[in-house]
Amino acid sequence: MGTQALRGGSRTAAGPRGRRAAVVKAQAVPARKRPEYVPNRIDDPNYVRIFDTTLRDGEQSPGATLTSKEKLEIAKKLSQLGVDIIEAGFPIASPDDFEAVRAIAMDVGNAVDDTGYVPVICGLSRTRDKDLETAWEAVRHAKLPRVHTFIATSEIHMKYKLRMTPDQVIENAVNAVKHLRSLGCNDIEFSPEDAGRSDPTFLYEILGEVIKAGATTLNIPDTTGWTLPHEFQTLISKIKANTPGADNVIISTHCQNDLGLSTANSLAGAMGGARQIECTINGIGERAGNASLEEVVMAIALRGESQMGGLYTGIRPVHIAAASKMVSDYSGMIVQPHKAIVGANAFAHESGIHQDGMLKNRDTYEIMSPETIGLQRHDEAGIVLGKHSGRNALKTRLSQLGFDLPEEQLNDVFKRFKNLADRKKNITDEDVLALVNDEVHQPEVVWVLEDLQVVCGSMGMPTATVRMRGPDGISRVTSGIGSGPVDAAYKAIDSLVRVQAELLDYSVNSVTEGIEALANTRVIIRPAGKMAGEAYVDSYKGGKTQRSFSGSGADEDIVVSSARAYISALNKMISFISAKSATNGAGSSSRAAAAEEPAVAA
Amino acid sequence: MGTQALRGGSRTAAGPRGRRAAVVKAQAVPARKRPEYVPNRIDDPNYVRIFDTTLRDGEQSPGATLTSKEKLEIAKKLSQLGVDIIEAGFPIASPDDFEAVRAIAMDVGNAVDDTGYVPVICGLSRTRDKDLETAWEAVRHAKLPRVHTFIATSEIHMKYKLRMTPDQVIENAVNAVKHLRSLGCNDIEFSPEDAGRSDPTFLYEILGEVIKAGATTLNIPDTTGWTLPHEFQTLISKIKANTPGADNVIISTHCQNDLGLSTANSLAGAMGGARQIECTINGIGERAGNASLEEVVMAIALRGESQMGGLYTGIRPVHIAAASKMVSDYSGMIVQPHKAIVGANAFAHESGIHQDGMLKNRDTYEIMSPETIGLQRHDEAGIVLGKHSGRNALKTRLSQLGFDLPEEQLNDVFKRFKNLADRKKNITDEDVLALVNDEVHQPEVVWVLEDLQVVCGSMGMPTATVRMRGPDGISRVTSGIGSGPVDAAYKAIDSLVRVQAELLDYSVNSVTEGIEALANTRVIIRPAGKMAGEAYVDSYKGGKTQRSFSGSGADEDIVVSSARAYISALNKMISFISAKSATNGAGSSSRAAAAEEPAVAA
Repeated sequence: MGTQALRGGSRTAAGPRGRRAAVVKAQAVPARKRPEYVPNRIDDPNYVRIFDTTLRDGEQSPGATLTSKEKLEIAKKLSQLGVDIIEAGFPIASPDDFEAVRAIAMDVGNAVDDTGYVPVICGLSRTRDKDLETAWEAVRHAKLPRVHTFIATSEIHMKYKLRMTPDQVIENAVNAVKHLRSLGCNDIEFSPEDAGRSDPTFLYEILGEVIKAGATTLNIPDTTGWTLPHEFQTLISKIKANTPGADNVIISTHCQNDLGLSTANSLAGAMGGARQIECTINGIGERAGNASLEEVVMAIALRGESQMGGLYTGIRPVHIAAASKMVSDYSGMIVQPHKAIVGANAFAHESGIHQDGMLKNRDTYEIMSPETIGLQRHDEAGIVLGKHSGRNALKTRLSQLGFDLPEEQLNDVFKRFKNLADRKKNITDEDVLALVNDEVHQPEVVWVLEDLQVVCGSMGMPTATVRMRGPDGISRVTSGIGSGPVDAAYKAIDSLVRVQAELLDYSVNSVTEGIEALANTRVIIRPAGKMAGEAYVDSYKGGKTQRSFSGSGADEDIVVSSARAYISALNKMISFISAKSATNGAGSSSRAAAAEEPAVAA
Repeated sequence: MGTQALRGGSRTAAGPRGRRAAVVKAQAVPARKRPEYVPNRIDDPNYVRIFDTTLRDGEQSPGATLTSKEKLEIAKKLSQLGVDIIEAGFPIASPDDFEAVRAIAMDVGNAVDDTGYVPVICGLSRTRDKDLETAWEAVRHAKLPRVHTFIATSEIHMKYKLRMTPDQVIENAVNAVKHLRSLGCNDIEFSPEDAGRSDPTFLYEILGEVIKAGATTLNIPDTTGWTLPHEFQTLISKIKANTPGADNVIISTHCQNDLGLSTANSLAGAMGGARQIECTINGIGERAGNASLEEVVMAIALRGESQMGGLYTGIRPVHIAAASKMVSDYSGMIVQPHKAIVGANAFAHESGIHQDGMLKNRDTYEIMSPETIGLQRHDEAGIVLGKHSGRNALKTRLSQLGFDLPEEQLNDVFKRFKNLADRKKNITDEDVLALVNDEVHQPEVVWVLEDLQVVCGSMGMPTATVRMRGPDGISRVTSGIGSGPVDAAYKAIDSLVRVQAELLDYSVNSVTEGIEALANTRVIIRPAGKMAGEAYVDSYKGGKTQRSFSGSGADEDIVVSSARAYISALNKMISFISAKSATNGAGSSSRAAAAEEPAVAA
């Protein structure tokens, strides 16, 4: 694939026709055929597998907890992107996590496309038997199931976290791989956690042993984001050279971003011989996150041929913008305006250059066109949808954006769309996505906002009156007084819902045109008071992690959208806790929460 | 400097005493003496100069326009950080830009500290005589003044942007350097724009010629963020090896971030022999921005000794967090939660680990401590300030945060602080900074919000009543109706202020504790209608750029903070346009704007 295709072939043609041509070109990428999937080898030595862990490592970001429905939507989008492997979750973490992975394995893991492509569905697991069995049970219905198991190999982790000797660690790893084989799993990934700080000789030894036991992919994580690119490249090539049996497996990278080097390290790893790169959409993840899928993929697409010995991937970059938007909306992890590839400003320089400026050729400042990643130029796109657009036009646009909604949901979205079109001249893709997100991808509804009225300002006590329908179907009204209108509304909601939640984060983003033409509010909450113990899950790090929950709302009125966002997060939290209570059975603290009627769903 | 110092020496000590010890350790970095400043050489071969261009390249981000006052504050912070060179602006861009650079040169450029350190103040200039003279005039009062001139050298830029032959480009560059020498400037930086895509042989030739003419620093920009680290490292070492006279000047890097590789490329450049790295706080800048100062500096601090042949910088990392916050607030360029080093989550992993977890040693997941960059751990910091804190406690904390306010401003902030303390138990540094930002660093006030009252909700027509005092000192009241409370308030404000502005962006961020305990609103606007032509400035790219203006507001009430933010942006826009009108003299369109009383300041 030449870089010219990525930059769009129609640079000289102006107007809508030219733009369409560019889009077609962009969609044609990648032009090369994806090699057939075999766990432990790739028939084309230049093909690099993309392993997306947005749903596992990404979802561990504070506040990024996703509902099962959101996870499934994201997995579908990753499949549109052409990701080779989807790490769908950590099944042992909670029944909810297990179910999400299983649903993705059964649905997305069996949706083979025209070209024969279907993503591998992977579940993460510690080395314990029960973890491994749970992970296998979650993924095994996929056409291509994989289990990814791991144990730490750096001195500091073995000593302080595991309290194991190196020999015990090897034994654990080998037993885990053997156990997976005995369950019938023949696509097995193994990660030596904190490999970047591990003793190389020990690394070669443990990796050689797990290969003997039957591992097919060896993933080398730079767990603390500590290595520099040249250092990581050397690490990977040394592992390839010194590990017995390394030629018969795939070497993979997993680079954290603590020093801002994750993309460079991933590429360096591939240049050192790795043929799988682990990454996430928008680079989300714990702390400073992971390598960004979009950066890794576009760097390889643009420079793989000339600078990386011909490397290429199977990703269809035209879905990058939509995937980025979806992950940012669902996870609440915003993308900064100057984020590479997917930031709001990434292609925005042109708007600042006046028409009569001297720039006669876009390539002077643009190494790829926005159409490549599925973005429409604002100045060229014109009116996407407007007041007179019918139900069919909306349906078509939604389908182009990757949403095929059932009739009933489409009707709901269309009603709100018409409402918005009365107020706003041009409805952009962002608006449509906000409506879909708000209306369709809400969690299992427990509480519904019916009406809201607020009086506030600099002179008095802000007061909100709220009417809500509860899980029992009954509408109730109450009022609240707060330090501001949103605080007042939240206080009123709290006194109706009667759960204790701590607000961790609150943000509002507009809106492309005029304030509140659609205000998009996002909140992150955490159970507090008596419910605080309810949302702990076993973390893969060996400790317990307290879950937090995000919710979003879109409305023309910022106070209404704030209330919708808060209720959405509360509903998510209530569903999670009641699911947990249901599975945990007679756990006394769960009972205490369940007794707090009418908060918990029946 | 060992990495142990960066991670804090007091890991085993618990409690406040332990924390204080860690802070002291962190402040002691860097331990090494900064070599004396000589434009064209550095006496220690391992010292890397940090050139910060937040105020020039960073400020060119859409919407990031800064007031002169904000620029001066940021320059002071950069000087606290120990930045070697501050690129303060592009003086020819507008009279306002010129004045800002001049003020920084005279103030920060003469503030020599105890160690003898004072930052070089640099101004950017095209190769035209008038540009060069203006730039020199702006910086020459600094103790160490520098002018940075540039011209494009890639085929595509020379052909389409400059419409010059390679020989004409060389002649232009050489004449510019000679002209600067004739003005008395002996610290001259030259950049071949788009060097990453330029013909290497031509690069060596033009660089050799400008060295002969008297340039002291050669900056190699990767203007489109196109190169990979190994490629950029090779480019730098080849330039060093093949450019006649390269040993007698400093080679510099300037890496854009379009593929997410700017930090890695900058480090690779240093490994290839560059001894100046250009970067910005938070990595802001056009499109995907520049290399992040904090990432470059921390990577060198942590890995320079062992992996980069002993490289080090003169940066005091303990000021990084405050600088990041200031730049994000003033520029409106938010930082994503998973941004390396300075993102809200960068050190947040610990909060998810339960106390009784197995992590006994922080180093398992932490390669540096938050104290290193001047952050206090939330779980250890406890109450920084509270209800009973007096004026002196606030003054002390402000001073520790780098703000020494005159009495009157301190009184204003204290009044609002007490107000907030009545509502919020613990006042964090973020709250204090939000108050300072909102109260003190507002632009020249033209319009002031006196009172605001709003009725809204899902049932009726949102209505806002606003009382404002204008530049004539008279208070006026009016009401507005909108699609939501903020829209209604903005409509009311519009009808009082009578300027036409287009809202480009609107966002709200909380608040660490409870909604609206302080809602921080940020808006970006652009002149519209009759005023649209007023804010065009010459861009360094050769075209015209339309300025946009950001404003921020903090208040317990989200509608009030939104109104404050909007008025702050309007005031900034009005001041800019009236300054422009004043300088431009009889420009007819300026007159038209000036006639729009009472919008423009007298």
